[in-house]
Amino acid sequence: MKDDAGMQIPTYDDVIAAHERIRPHIHRTPVLTSTYLDERSGAQLFFKCENFQKAGAFKVRGACNAVFGLSDEMAAKGVATHSSGNHALSLAYAAGRRGIPCHVVMPRTAPEAKKAAVRGYGGEITECEPSTSSREAVFAELQARTGAEFVHPYNDPRVIAGQGTCARELLEQVEGLDAVIAPIGGGGMVSGTCLTLSALAPHVEIYAAEPAQADDACRSLRAGRIIADDAPQTVADGLKVPLKELTWHFVRTHVTDILTASEAEIIDAMKLTWQRMKIVMEPSCAVPLATILKHPDVFAGKRVGVIVTGGNVDLDRLPWMKG
Amino acid sequence: MKDDAGMQIPTYDDVIAAHERIRPHIHRTPVLTSTYLDERSGAQLFFKCENFQKAGAFKVRGACNAVFGLSDEMAAKGVATHSSGNHALSLAYAAGRRGIPCHVVMPRTAPEAKKAAVRGYGGEITECEPSTSSREAVFAELQARTGAEFVHPYNDPRVIAGQGTCARELLEQVEGLDAVIAPIGGGGMVSGTCLTLSALAPHVEIYAAEPAQADDACRSLRAGRIIADDAPQTVADGLKVPLKELTWHFVRTHVTDILTASEAEIIDAMKLTWQRMKIVMEPSCAVPLATILKHPDVFAGKRVGVIVTGGNVDLDRLPWMKG
Repeated sequence: MKDDAGMQIPTYDDVIAAHERIRPHIHRTPVLTSTYLDERSGAQLFFKCENFQKAGAFKVRGACNAVFGLSDEMAAKGVATHSSGNHALSLAYAAGRRGIPCHVVMPRTAPEAKKAAVRGYGGEITECEPSTSSREAVFAELQARTGAEFVHPYNDPRVIAGQGTCARELLEQVEGLDAVIAPIGGGGMVSGTCLTLSALAPHVEIYAAEPAQADDACRSLRAGRIIADDAPQTVADGLKVPLKELTWHFVRTHVTDILTASEAEIIDAMKLTWQRMKIVMEPSCAVPLATILKHPDVFAGKRVGVIVTGGNVDLDRLPWMKG
Repeated sequence: MKDDAGMQIPTYDDVIAAHERIRPHIHRTPVLTSTYLDERSGAQLFFKCENFQKAGAFKVRGACNAVFGLSDEMAAKGVATHSSGNHALSLAYAAGRRGIPCHVVMPRTAPEAKKAAVRGYGGEITECEPSTSSREAVFAELQARTGAEFVHPYNDPRVIAGQGTCARELLEQVEGLDAVIAPIGGGGMVSGTCLTLSALAPHVEIYAAEPAQADDACRSLRAGRIIADDAPQTVADGLKVPLKELTWHFVRTHVTDILTASEAEIIDAMKLTWQRMKIVMEPSCAVPLATILKHPDVFAGKRVGVIVTGGNVDLDRLPWMKG
């Protein structure tokens, strides 16, 4: 489906096709509950644990859909992206499963651990200087040289359709949901969630959760247009990127509200889940719980699906450790 | 069943009865797998995640069986134990579910966090001096005063029958196991595992895993008699206690072998599970994986059940953090 501006908007049929395509390559992740957190929040919380997903994050859904949807001819040239986070890992994982090259442009200043993780999944790193102009130049040269297919981390209909498979599983796993909440950075997971819920369960409220220190999506929703911040600082490092036109389409059309939490609230919620649920989640995916505990009036008495987006954490640098 | 010395030895019928009794009060915990750890070990590993259990540890199985097996008259006087670990938490949880008192004798020098956790589950703490003589005197006075039923952390047939329910679930959840491995301290979980497997699947090998720095069970098995060390030091703080006559009975009768791992190997295995499986496990329950990675010859090609005993960790003092 294309909108008036010619933008390729994925449909729920694309989600169904994506699910068939990626099923052999992903986990159907479990849904966990916590009596303690239900009591704390006054709601019934159902945690969809994408931290247990392949490559440790939901992004493998979208990446696999993009990679396995390519024709053999296109696939032979490989895929490429610029990311130093979970999308790079996920695309490398997906490309490895198909046996094709995955090129990742990363700043030479990125942590060695992140480079090692991408290489661990078979990704080939091309370094750039830590500036947008260098990244774009290096990426353009790489793409011209290899012909690799660019897979954007979120502003891509194949990626959004892939992320929509997560909410599809959640609806099969939990009956009678009143609301679903997911963290929002670029908006890929939120967009996929909107796509699926608007088709299957349009009465379910969709909330997005954002760090107060990187609240560009929240301000975008209030303003009615995309607001992009320059390099926001937050412990939730997966949520620093801005909305783009495709994710903005879903956010403005389907999201009930975007709630925010402070850095301290995010870190507290992260530690609480480790302590009480015994699961390792990233700072980014603690933001939904932080907002639920901050806004009990919004969620009390509701059955709420909480998308735990990933679990890739540097265990030597936990945000509650001093120094 | 009583043995020649008049010791009350639980039978598999006791495990079945325990399971019926405790089912409303415990989780049927999930079994997780890891492609990465399978590749590392050369085995197929099935992690029975008791870190997701109520109160964060398998010990709630035995504690619930003891508490809910009491007559109303006995129950009214409450239960008592001395422990500063998961057994105290679990007994407090079980007593709270039945609405009866739980008395816990703890050294006044025990960490405040552990005291707070016991109180959080409704346990009443009576402090003693940090010596065995003080603990015994305070406990005797408490029991004389209250008439509370003593529930030993492991040398108790009710507790062992309760722990046996874990292996019973594991056999229902995973087909074709060749071996099961669990950490060994006092031997409660290993004894319950022996009890269930010897009845249901006597061909399955049973391994126990122990810190090399607290290897009294391993030396006991070699020597053919209980060897108890005085205050061994290990990061696996749940495994410092010695075997007692009831657990020794099961260990010497059914355990295939006891394997050990160094402190560094235990910490590496713990960190590896957090990184790769995204679950929070205690140092004590990383010992089985540490021994599996150390002894690939023992486990290669086998389907191995790994009992992850608990997830109660001080997140501010992780063993891989310096200082």
